[in-house]
Amino acid sequence: MTTAAPILLTPGPLTTAARTRQAMQVDWGSWDEGFNQLTASVCEQLLAIIDGADSHHCVPLQGSGTFAVESAIGTLVPRTGKVLVLINGAYGKRLAKICEVLGRDFSTFETAEDQPTTAADVDRLLHADTAITHVALIHCETSTGILNPLPEIAQVVKQHGKRLIIDAMSSFGALPIDARAVPFDALIAASGKCLEGVPGMGFVFANKQALAAAQGNCHSLALDLFDQHAYMAKTGQWRFTPPTHVVAALHEALLQYAEAGGLPARHQRYARNCQVLLDGMAELGLRSFLPAAIQAPIIVTFHAPQDPRYQFKDFYERVKAKGFILYPGKLTQVDTFRVGCIGHVDTPDMHAAVSAIADVLHAMGITLSSIGSQA
Amino acid sequence: MTTAAPILLTPGPLTTAARTRQAMQVDWGSWDEGFNQLTASVCEQLLAIIDGADSHHCVPLQGSGTFAVESAIGTLVPRTGKVLVLINGAYGKRLAKICEVLGRDFSTFETAEDQPTTAADVDRLLHADTAITHVALIHCETSTGILNPLPEIAQVVKQHGKRLIIDAMSSFGALPIDARAVPFDALIAASGKCLEGVPGMGFVFANKQALAAAQGNCHSLALDLFDQHAYMAKTGQWRFTPPTHVVAALHEALLQYAEAGGLPARHQRYARNCQVLLDGMAELGLRSFLPAAIQAPIIVTFHAPQDPRYQFKDFYERVKAKGFILYPGKLTQVDTFRVGCIGHVDTPDMHAAVSAIADVLHAMGITLSSIGSQA
Repeated sequence: MTTAAPILLTPGPLTTAARTRQAMQVDWGSWDEGFNQLTASVCEQLLAIIDGADSHHCVPLQGSGTFAVESAIGTLVPRTGKVLVLINGAYGKRLAKICEVLGRDFSTFETAEDQPTTAADVDRLLHADTAITHVALIHCETSTGILNPLPEIAQVVKQHGKRLIIDAMSSFGALPIDARAVPFDALIAASGKCLEGVPGMGFVFANKQALAAAQGNCHSLALDLFDQHAYMAKTGQWRFTPPTHVVAALHEALLQYAEAGGLPARHQRYARNCQVLLDGMAELGLRSFLPAAIQAPIIVTFHAPQDPRYQFKDFYERVKAKGFILYPGKLTQVDTFRVGCIGHVDTPDMHAAVSAIADVLHAMGITLSSIGSQA
Repeated sequence: MTTAAPILLTPGPLTTAARTRQAMQVDWGSWDEGFNQLTASVCEQLLAIIDGADSHHCVPLQGSGTFAVESAIGTLVPRTGKVLVLINGAYGKRLAKICEVLGRDFSTFETAEDQPTTAADVDRLLHADTAITHVALIHCETSTGILNPLPEIAQVVKQHGKRLIIDAMSSFGALPIDARAVPFDALIAASGKCLEGVPGMGFVFANKQALAAAQGNCHSLALDLFDQHAYMAKTGQWRFTPPTHVVAALHEALLQYAEAGGLPARHQRYARNCQVLLDGMAELGLRSFLPAAIQAPIIVTFHAPQDPRYQFKDFYERVKAKGFILYPGKLTQVDTFRVGCIGHVDTPDMHAAVSAIADVLHAMGITLSSIGSQA
């Protein structure tokens, strides 16, 4: 069975290093001290990325990133709380949906998919509704790849004495977030994104005081972050069966992350990948959806070619046959597709992907005029 | 990194086949048709094990088995329902805890840890409280290894016109359950138990009519089985990021399950493992906690040696050094330890484990008198 192709240019699950996958060749006992040490090391390494060891606990949770987001809201927002949800894409809408299902009071502020929420917006909204206790936002909205101005928003939230919940699923590990400078109650991410582990677990950086005050608050047993943390602090073990192979893979991925130079190196590699992609696609005449200033180097949304011969499914299958898996668009108003810049890929892969896309467009009889670099 | 040792004699995560772990060497795109086919094949193979394709949907869910149990209760028990929870161990207690956290009305019926619940008990309890809408039980209670009489209880529940929820976490795939003969609304199990996959996902066999009636019932977005099924039925995809490598491993484990002869073969192998273990341990003078008639061939609880030189931690570490990972006891009143019979292990492994335990007891200076076979 080949492990080489195709390369995933997607927002995760993504292409991982062979060494990361190799770490899944061991069956760990979930009760065993050796496995407890793996878990503790993962949490310690994760906290170090945000310089959060003094202020926050790292609480890992089984399931996808959304499970961890729901656990953070359900555990940390009191039942009498009210959440202001900032939306400019599908994942912001999901935050609101979680509040709705959990019966937490909430209001939403939605901007267009190519418009970041601003700190001024948040300031105005918090002035207008003092019942709001928490603000929740998406750092990098994977629907488009748009980056929201987290540090500025966090300062405004703090000035109002409110609490912040950050879904940093697709940015954590690649874009800097400093827990000493950005105040938050919860920051949520997952194993299978910019850390380049495999999917199957999320984690929440929970403010120590906020978590200590959250006993009995959660709507769920499985998703109760307070219980999850308390049990792990006491026993070193996960409360329910952990995804042992996923944990081992994340541990190995984090070792490689540090060896390669940590966040600055990861950021630079993804930024290079993104630039090669933007430049190459512009040369082919494929326009990116977002202006460069708000484009995170995580995933890029491109306008679909305006050509009757273009159909995403055909395009996708042909590019896949050349060894690259793209991602469909998630915008309702505009026909787009997406290409990820993250995962165990580097500039040669991005050049090859652009070249494969060029060949496929040519084979489909689609000609576009070059629109120049968007650098 | 060696993949051979130690062998896990635990209730899961357990020792898997190299071929199963090898299936995790591929990074699958979660949106890709190839991965959708893996998921569909997993569900189809799972349904075939219970002959349930006509009556039930198989709904996979991210997370540990407990996540799937909570999703079944939260989705399928109406908010006005009342659950009778049958308890003879820690996992039965967990069912009650889930009902409590979710705010579902419930009552409990608890027997001693070596006493199966009987159909007569259930008949009496359902006569006494007609407000009960659902009965929930553990098929094989992993706390001890005790087997509860599922078919008999299921018939009584049906006669009363009530619904049944079965936690078959540690029995599914090894002990026969026929959906055509045993009526139930939900049966829950997970990837990393008798199917010999790796941990990271559960699944619920949900009665088609019961699931269709459950829209909007769940307390959670992530754990909503109705939504999970509806989205998968419509798109072929998981609603939120799936644990792709875990799914691929389960698919490969199920292929091997079928090739080796399916459930009868799995049951026979585990029964042989269990008998070798019981006989060998009896010869060493180690008494099993349960009588043979109610001992499932899944995990065996042994009384700890009555010797001041015995301490579980020391015993565990010494046996581990010889290549076998045992499991601690979970009884509060009696000092015990547990040894699993499940996983990619066969009689030579069990003989070797008994031999290792004999050597360790000898080295610890513990002598016991043989108590003869318990066959």
